[in-house]
Amino acid sequence: MSVVPPYSAGRVEVRRLPEGVFERDAVAVEEPLEIRVDGAPLAVTMRTPGHDDELSLGFLRSEGIQGVAAHPPVDLAANTIDVEVEGDFDPERLRRNFYTSSSCGVCGKGALEAVAVEAPRIESELRLPAALVAELPERLRAAQPTFAATGGLHATGLFDREGELLCVREDVGRHNAMDKVIGRAFLDGLLPLGERVLCVSGRLSFELVQKAAVAGCPILVAVGAPSTLAVELGRDRGMTLCGFVRSGRVNVYSNAWRIE
Amino acid sequence: MSVVPPYSAGRVEVRRLPEGVFERDAVAVEEPLEIRVDGAPLAVTMRTPGHDDELSLGFLRSEGIQGVAAHPPVDLAANTIDVEVEGDFDPERLRRNFYTSSSCGVCGKGALEAVAVEAPRIESELRLPAALVAELPERLRAAQPTFAATGGLHATGLFDREGELLCVREDVGRHNAMDKVIGRAFLDGLLPLGERVLCVSGRLSFELVQKAAVAGCPILVAVGAPSTLAVELGRDRGMTLCGFVRSGRVNVYSNAWRIE
Repeated sequence: MSVVPPYSAGRVEVRRLPEGVFERDAVAVEEPLEIRVDGAPLAVTMRTPGHDDELSLGFLRSEGIQGVAAHPPVDLAANTIDVEVEGDFDPERLRRNFYTSSSCGVCGKGALEAVAVEAPRIESELRLPAALVAELPERLRAAQPTFAATGGLHATGLFDREGELLCVREDVGRHNAMDKVIGRAFLDGLLPLGERVLCVSGRLSFELVQKAAVAGCPILVAVGAPSTLAVELGRDRGMTLCGFVRSGRVNVYSNAWRIE
Repeated sequence: MSVVPPYSAGRVEVRRLPEGVFERDAVAVEEPLEIRVDGAPLAVTMRTPGHDDELSLGFLRSEGIQGVAAHPPVDLAANTIDVEVEGDFDPERLRRNFYTSSSCGVCGKGALEAVAVEAPRIESELRLPAALVAELPERLRAAQPTFAATGGLHATGLFDREGELLCVREDVGRHNAMDKVIGRAFLDGLLPLGERVLCVSGRLSFELVQKAAVAGCPILVAVGAPSTLAVELGRDRGMTLCGFVRSGRVNVYSNAWRIE
């Protein structure tokens, strides 16, 4: 597993004020990627190129689609990737299912059940010292080569129970960074992530918690703030959510027994 | 026009470490909203409730859909909003168009033309002093009641050429905050925004630049970093993009002649 992502910055001209000088500046790369399943377009995400196989596999697994084949072919000139799904498969049906699970079906239900992807409740007995959790964001930041240059990328890191960084991925989209890490873990046979920890550079949204839940991860750590629905989902799925993890402090929003 | 958004925080129990005390904490509200057009589901966005009419109208206009009727009915219990589109309209066709413009159609084209919504190039002659631009993020922050409590919300502000704040909206989704402001401007008859300035609390992604471009805004100011595709689109559409606007400094990434 490659721990550190590639350097993904472009260079643009910038005028710096108040001095008024023109310089070249490093900027995070953003390009669209069309994810296809068995040749049929399913979704487009605005992403930072690199690890597109991980991104598409992690995305599909996070949407509850199982049995995807590894190493889909990427066409970087056309910004497309084509994922083969194992078994008999109707792409139109997949697209409708995808639409239903992530973009529809809200009426008449509670918010959580309407948008949640089915996943088993997480029963992992993993526990971590608070002091170790507090260090994870700094370890993540230290492994972000493109953020250091551009200030323009989100990151997700996968850690083991000793706090060793197993994988980090950067992306202009925070969901993409999470999908890439989950896709990498899938390719390396690490799913479900019952004994591991995910750490994100930003806030805890519902969708990030859901991706971690579907991957079976018991502890999700964030530098930023959670939302109400993120906390609700974490409690419902038996996950431990840590937010505002900075300067030696940790706020635990659900299942606090895992943080000692 | 109501300048300041409502307070949109929920309260959850949090355990603060290393002290280990349990307290109540304010957290930004996140709920799904299903946007329907003439009764047919079009998209779901995870958003902070409030100003849902602005959000849905701004979203549709940003997708290039014109002629939407004001004040669509909201069902807050079901988290749905139903927008009536003027004239003869086929919802299935709209959904396909939406899918095509924002989630598909990448193959065989350059990245920019593949995902861009059509909008006229911005010809506004608006110019602003750099010192005024540098102050906008602080003025935006001062008008964010829920961010101050939760640390969990993005914001977009609309300013006039004297730097007076006309409208600010907060949301867990940065695109939603922009859509709400554009929807508000639409309801108030302010579109296109040729003599006004938009300011966002985060980074400059392609999609945020596109929303501002479709609204006809000549100057877009951000606290954070731009991406490559954001800069490319800003140049293509004649917009002035300012990034890393903090501590009296301004980086101008396109059409720097508008910043004096």
